[in-house]
Amino acid sequence: MRRLPDEERPEVLFGLHPVLEAIEAGTRSIDRILVAREGGGHNLGRLLRAAREAGIPVTHLPREVLARKIGGRAVHQGVAAQIAAVAYALPELVVAAASADPAGLIVMLDGIEDPRNLGAIARTAAATGAHGILLGTEDTVGLTPAAAKTAAGALERLPVAREPKPRRRIETLREAGFRTVALDPRGRTPWDEENYGGRVLVVAGGESHGLRRSLLEAVDARVSLPLAGGVESLNVSVAVGAVLFEILRRRRAAGKGAAFARIPGGSP
Amino acid sequence: MRRLPDEERPEVLFGLHPVLEAIEAGTRSIDRILVAREGGGHNLGRLLRAAREAGIPVTHLPREVLARKIGGRAVHQGVAAQIAAVAYALPELVVAAASADPAGLIVMLDGIEDPRNLGAIARTAAATGAHGILLGTEDTVGLTPAAAKTAAGALERLPVAREPKPRRRIETLREAGFRTVALDPRGRTPWDEENYGGRVLVVAGGESHGLRRSLLEAVDARVSLPLAGGVESLNVSVAVGAVLFEILRRRRAAGKGAAFARIPGGSP
Repeated sequence: MRRLPDEERPEVLFGLHPVLEAIEAGTRSIDRILVAREGGGHNLGRLLRAAREAGIPVTHLPREVLARKIGGRAVHQGVAAQIAAVAYALPELVVAAASADPAGLIVMLDGIEDPRNLGAIARTAAATGAHGILLGTEDTVGLTPAAAKTAAGALERLPVAREPKPRRRIETLREAGFRTVALDPRGRTPWDEENYGGRVLVVAGGESHGLRRSLLEAVDARVSLPLAGGVESLNVSVAVGAVLFEILRRRRAAGKGAAFARIPGGSP
Repeated sequence: MRRLPDEERPEVLFGLHPVLEAIEAGTRSIDRILVAREGGGHNLGRLLRAAREAGIPVTHLPREVLARKIGGRAVHQGVAAQIAAVAYALPELVVAAASADPAGLIVMLDGIEDPRNLGAIARTAAATGAHGILLGTEDTVGLTPAAAKTAAGALERLPVAREPKPRRRIETLREAGFRTVALDPRGRTPWDEENYGGRVLVVAGGESHGLRRSLLEAVDARVSLPLAGGVESLNVSVAVGAVLFEILRRRRAAGKGAAFARIPGGSP
């Protein structure tokens, strides 16, 4: 586990009841709940159910690992919640915004582990006119201070939501007319030969294992970036960036997304 | 100063004479020389001259900062050398390789501070068929263990050299027929409207201050990536990646660089 510098360490809420209250109050500011394997009072089951319903990831880990992870402090009742650096949006709002725009663009990330990649992708997504980011399953990093720092302000402008059912979401977006495109090193379509007309959902997987099969199976197309020189893979934020700028280029060239075409280089 | 995890901490050589001997032996494996401000034996002047001639950056810093930087060890004679994770190439070799190929492609980085950005750019440069990377002045990060780790093997294939005179190098490459293109958020040419035919040098600056004026003035063209949504800048490895993949796309489209055009998506 990488030791986080102090300014990248999330704020933490301690104890079963404070965490449970925060979940039930409906805030979208809890990034992840940490539970000591050994511990758990009699209300732990209720807390875990509430977290699942709210789509908040839960990590179970040994008590001493938990204590180390949150900076060596004692963990009251074996339960702690990491506070998000920026509040999560609701996925429905991201989808509604993209659906209302002929140049609708959503980025879905499933399995990204490095908060710096999330931050860099948020900057690129905002810069290329995306309407928001949907974050997939429990092993996907959240809106931690490190992600917010790398995003350099982009998270203030670009809504990021947790998506508890990524596969279902891909299917409903397809049905709604979005072109759903996954980044896949084994994809048959080169990134510059895909048709990105209309509304687009771009789906990318994590640094270690790529995208889950169940999501790869759900999309319209799998695009790949050519790799010369025996390189096995690209940094995920570079790969997503190459695809997002290719989408932007096509829209500029087609005169679609007139808002983009009017943007002079570099100026907002 | 970010605290480095142990596996990202460079190997260190201690003491004036061992470091001086290593420089004079002509190895290209010293990444940076650290000198305590208070210290310095009578041979320090000779060491600083030798480092300058070899193009090795030298950082002067207070003795206790130096000790902390190299992991709390005592610093013999106030001089330490950080060993590069991968040996540097000679810039002439990078230039010769690119000059021998009609699709010659070189990336010059000046002022990049984050080793993870250098590593990510090395992966992208290798993947898009670049012949090497030239690293500019003293504030540019070197081939540290963190850079090598992020490069995920790309540094074994892609030569990286220090370029002690970046501006002069841009000028000689221009004279030799390279199209020299700088990434500049204020550049007038959108990245997808530049002509990347023939041999190309791509020049990018650091995370904080962008590219130095003297280098911006030396290139043929300054290209920018459009930024929507009030985003002020992109991650530098994403921006360089977008330009490198645009160059690759043009070459594929033009049927130039047949080696690229033959690459099926994702396979080496």
